[in-house]
Amino acid sequence: MIDLRSDTVTKPTPEMREAMANAVVGDDVYGEDPTILELETYAADLVGKEAALFVTSGTQGNQVAVLTHMRQGEEIVMDEEAHVFLYEGGATAALAGVQSRTLPSKKGQIPLEQLAGAIRMSDVHFPDTGLIWLENTHNKSGGSVLPGSYLANVAELAKEHQIPVHIDGARIFNASVAENVLLKDIAKHASTVQFCLSKGLGAPVGSILAGDRSFIERARKWRKRLGGGLRQSGVIAAPALLALKAGFDHLNEDHKNAKLLANFLAELEGFHVINEVQTNMILVDTTETGLTSEDWLIELKSQGVLAVPYGPYTIRFTTHRDLSQNDIHHAIHQTKKAWQQLKG
Amino acid sequence: MIDLRSDTVTKPTPEMREAMANAVVGDDVYGEDPTILELETYAADLVGKEAALFVTSGTQGNQVAVLTHMRQGEEIVMDEEAHVFLYEGGATAALAGVQSRTLPSKKGQIPLEQLAGAIRMSDVHFPDTGLIWLENTHNKSGGSVLPGSYLANVAELAKEHQIPVHIDGARIFNASVAENVLLKDIAKHASTVQFCLSKGLGAPVGSILAGDRSFIERARKWRKRLGGGLRQSGVIAAPALLALKAGFDHLNEDHKNAKLLANFLAELEGFHVINEVQTNMILVDTTETGLTSEDWLIELKSQGVLAVPYGPYTIRFTTHRDLSQNDIHHAIHQTKKAWQQLKG
Amino acid sequence: MIDLRSDTVTKPTPEMREAMANAVVGDDVYGEDPTILELETYAADLVGKEAALFVTSGTQGNQVAVLTHMRQGEEIVMDEEAHVFLYEGGATAALAGVQSRTLPSKKGQIPLEQLAGAIRMSDVHFPDTGLIWLENTHNKSGGSVLPGSYLANVAELAKEHQIPVHIDGARIFNASVAENVLLKDIAKHASTVQFCLSKGLGAPVGSILAGDRSFIERARKWRKRLGGGLRQSGVIAAPALLALKAGFDHLNEDHKNAKLLANFLAELEGFHVINEVQTNMILVDTTETGLTSEDWLIELKSQGVLAVPYGPYTIRFTTHRDLSQNDIHHAIHQTKKAWQQLKG
Amino acid sequence: MIDLRSDTVTKPTPEMREAMANAVVGDDVYGEDPTILELETYAADLVGKEAALFVTSGTQGNQVAVLTHMRQGEEIVMDEEAHVFLYEGGATAALAGVQSRTLPSKKGQIPLEQLAGAIRMSDVHFPDTGLIWLENTHNKSGGSVLPGSYLANVAELAKEHQIPVHIDGARIFNASVAENVLLKDIAKHASTVQFCLSKGLGAPVGSILAGDRSFIERARKWRKRLGGGLRQSGVIAAPALLALKAGFDHLNEDHKNAKLLANFLAELEGFHVINEVQTNMILVDTTETGLTSEDWLIELKSQGVLAVPYGPYTIRFTTHRDLSQNDIHHAIHQTKKAWQQLKG
Repeated sequence: MIDLRSDTVTKPTPEMREAMANAVVGDDVYGEDPTILELETYAADLVGKEAALFVTSGTQGNQVAVLTHMRQGEEIVMDEEAHVFLYEGGATAALAGVQSRTLPSKKGQIPLEQLAGAIRMSDVHFPDTGLIWLENTHNKSGGSVLPGSYLANVAELAKEHQIPVHIDGARIFNASVAENVLLKDIAKHASTVQFCLSKGLGAPVGSILAGDRSFIERARKWRKRLGGGLRQSGVIAAPALLALKAGFDHLNEDHKNAKLLANFLAELEGFHVINEVQTNMILVDTTETGLTSEDWLIELKSQGVLAVPYGPYTIRFTTHRDLSQNDIHHAIHQTKKAWQQLKG
Repeated sequence: MIDLRSDTVTKPTPEMREAMANAVVGDDVYGEDPTILELETYAADLVGKEAALFVTSGTQGNQVAVLTHMRQGEEIVMDEEAHVFLYEGGATAALAGVQSRTLPSKKGQIPLEQLAGAIRMSDVHFPDTGLIWLENTHNKSGGSVLPGSYLANVAELAKEHQIPVHIDGARIFNASVAENVLLKDIAKHASTVQFCLSKGLGAPVGSILAGDRSFIERARKWRKRLGGGLRQSGVIAAPALLALKAGFDHLNEDHKNAKLLANFLAELEGFHVINEVQTNMILVDTTETGLTSEDWLIELKSQGVLAVPYGPYTIRFTTHRDLSQNDIHHAIHQTKKAWQQLKG
Repeated sequence: MIDLRSDTVTKPTPEMREAMANAVVGDDVYGEDPTILELETYAADLVGKEAALFVTSGTQGNQVAVLTHMRQGEEIVMDEEAHVFLYEGGATAALAGVQSRTLPSKKGQIPLEQLAGAIRMSDVHFPDTGLIWLENTHNKSGGSVLPGSYLANVAELAKEHQIPVHIDGARIFNASVAENVLLKDIAKHASTVQFCLSKGLGAPVGSILAGDRSFIERARKWRKRLGGGLRQSGVIAAPALLALKAGFDHLNEDHKNAKLLANFLAELEGFHVINEVQTNMILVDTTETGLTSEDWLIELKSQGVLAVPYGPYTIRFTTHRDLSQNDIHHAIHQTKKAWQQLKG
Repeated sequence: MIDLRSDTVTKPTPEMREAMANAVVGDDVYGEDPTILELETYAADLVGKEAALFVTSGTQGNQVAVLTHMRQGEEIVMDEEAHVFLYEGGATAALAGVQSRTLPSKKGQIPLEQLAGAIRMSDVHFPDTGLIWLENTHNKSGGSVLPGSYLANVAELAKEHQIPVHIDGARIFNASVAENVLLKDIAKHASTVQFCLSKGLGAPVGSILAGDRSFIERARKWRKRLGGGLRQSGVIAAPALLALKAGFDHLNEDHKNAKLLANFLAELEGFHVINEVQTNMILVDTTETGLTSEDWLIELKSQGVLAVPYGPYTIRFTTHRDLSQNDIHHAIHQTKKAWQQLKG
């Protein structure tokens, strides 16, 4: 099987497994797990923040950020396809009691004027705007990178209104590599940033929430309430630390593979590649093939290729470190076969 | 002052004041206020529901509906300009912990296909869709009426997915009169309906939430939690009951007055009437006058006319029972004078 | 019927009804109801606070206080029989997401050392203590008055820990009259105080939440979310204002009547008066009569006397302004008859 | 250092580390991690439930249970020293919006009559009782075991009122071993049970929530909202599965060691062992030594012995699998030395 569903399917490398087995651990609820402490320090430094917190998933990092930044009755401004709005079970409302003001965007970028217009004035009828949300790379538009100029403009607007900015950087490493810009230079535009260790980097479990020291102290208590205060969590911090230290240049391979696959798919009869492939995702519209995404996914699976539906006639393919260039060539070959079967 | 800001400014009539003074009352927390009981029975019957609950405002009726229909973590589908989303302090998230999935609409009508597309499939990432929300008349688009065919289509879709529908009928009387259709024939498309006694009808305080008996029983407890369980509330039920029994044909006058005013405003140099005036509201775009809504409102006020801003270059005028046709003529006259001043 | 169930059953006087009928009103959501404004100013002054907010019930005043003082995840310390814990539908958790740490008390007074011991240290496992709650008079122990020295001690402890104090003063007027102490001298020990206009004072509807100006501004938005932002609410403010201005000396009559009734009940075979009658409530234990409170209440009702159960063998009788001394004598007479019937 | 603070400090064994390194993994959000699936099946069977869910901590298991069983505005009945009330950040209120009705208990057992009395009647003032909570073993009273007869009585009462029962079985294995009763025969008295893999069993991370199939399906969505949906979590499931399969007889050693230590401490001048040592915890009152728990803990630490304060004059010692009988003898020896130092 060539698994192009998501970069979340990456499995730990032998080195990561060894790191787990040898991890020095302690009870992290007592603040005594040295591997966790090292990971948190290393991760904070990487994004240029004072402090960081290990969390068990991107969703947990995002939710802890919302719970710590905001109080119930406030409003977040975000793009209408944000992962936190579409795919996290409505948790920002369920847990933090905050309303999401969602706006249309182009590849995750809300036009500045509309963003400014969505910030609430002070009035007894209005929730106060308590947070501006960015997602980089932007998943739903196919792994799009938010340009530095956009980040800077949003940061300036936010500062003017004294509203914090959070970056959902589940795939911030892809953005960094694609634009050849330091993580710090992305994260500097936000108060807090969350990033995942278990996607392109390949660690088995975990994410990081980074921000200033007092924020992270308060976040720690929210993490505890959500059940994210672990014991000998060094065993999962060790492979993550290894992955961070090894660098992320290997993501360039994923991006090349994505372009390779996209070029092929763009040529395939009836397929339309929707997105500009900037990182590791390709969105394909199948309408002209006369077949739904579900039809396609079933046939692709029987040809040994896995992908995910992103709409009734949209498929998402995602490349990642467990797939070599050869795998992509094989996927291309099998996709052709699938089309032959479907045309039958 | 000709107060065209809202129909909420209507004051109780002498008959209503007399009704208050003579109301037979009891302790409604014990269920012993006869005037409240009569009002609730009368109101339920009027909209063809089994039971009704007196609440102190439209916001309270809407929030109690959400709290009773839903549980935290669910999602409401509604149009992006719904009053409950824009003007109720984010309370659906703050109190009920539910997420609002907001969609673009034409005059409060979300295209059926998009509405259907927003209903969530069963998946661990998704909140369950727990309620579909309609607002009739639709305030933000200028008092637009939802056509019966649209209501029927939404009701059918909702039934197919076993999702309840709530109508925010703050101005349902205006819809009924404008379309010459019974309240019951609007309300039959929804599980529950909220309507206001203090807007076009002119009662000083209060709204009604109506639905089936078991729903209203549970709603009663949520009203208590919000502090809406009152004592000798018959004193405010009495004028409301009088207003309901007197009928709502007088709203036709408000609608005629709105059209009269709209016709004048449409002719005024630089003014653009945005909405089709179906009920008692007029939205005017002032862009071509070169002046903002705030500029205009200040000058209008100094000429004795009050209205409200609905955007940087949009003004809303609302007619109501405390304004006669003469008042409208006077408002027209003063608006002309305002323009002369502004042109200077 | 002699209705001794609660002082909430008091009905508006003819003067109050006249005040309603003649009230000067406006739209209070626009801040334009002069009668509400006068009431809020008068009420704030009465308890020595900067500002006050009219709310529709004691529950609403209490819940708005919690929502404004606290944020979710914090803890309130209160006595285990507090009205807000037992009788408000669990709303502090449901709406504000705060935990109630309840402690045993003597007549509403938690021993200082235990109160201090319940204030949480800073630790990742603990909610922060965000509010200390007092109830004066204390309903569940039979209308007990909290002594000034106790209030002062709690205030000092709270100050030391920088935790605000709220007084649920639903019956603060009874405390004031019983101790012959100014309302201000009770309220000065707390950041905020709530008191009811519809109990001993006899106004039909409403309560007041008072505190400092910035607190009340924020409280106004929470009141709006709960649906307590009303329109021409001057009609209910007018009788309340009348009641406040008339003074509360008449509560002395209620207290005398309570003692009169208590003296009789204490002598009645098998009855045991549990509480020291300081204000307008009497708690009676019926165990030795061999009959439950329910048995007694049914028979008393058939003899024309109403009271409420406060436990399987406990009855509460409450005096109020709609009951004269003669009514009490009549109630005594009928209670004797009830006993004869029951002994049969 | 002899670490007697908690059994949470246990570190993974070499076999567990090897299991981690060799774990077969997949993406558990897609339901494809075979090790997690095996662990969940094995764990469900062990406690006689239809299904189970891996969660990252006992707190997460407890909170997911509350969120799935209840809806906001309901009430849980529990003992006043329950871990979920004292040590989980007030999360049941913060996240689920439910109120905790806490009652005094003897070693975690609330007298049946008081438990029954705390179940709310149907009334507009009352939250509905939605859950009864048990903790076995009961931490705060020193690891006390709830007798089977008590569990059966609570189960019967709960059934009569149609209220579910949840067991916080963070240390249920200790209860099982101490009473020589099967886990199933404890868990059968409850709808759902949570137990920890990272305490006495020694796995590095994780807990289990077990219940019927439809409950666990709904719980899975709440776990996702809390950020507990992990990716290649087989790496932490593998050591946990190993621990479960190895059996828990080794806990008998911990219990023997606890009794050994308790016998010594009981003889020590000025020390008073408060609890009957049934499992692996000892509570000591230091009042008669004239020294606080903090004084003692500092000196013990300098003698190489760690324990935790459980009150100003109370210390808790906990035995676990990383401590041998020799370690206990050494701890005894060092405690004597500490006393000599303190007496000076």
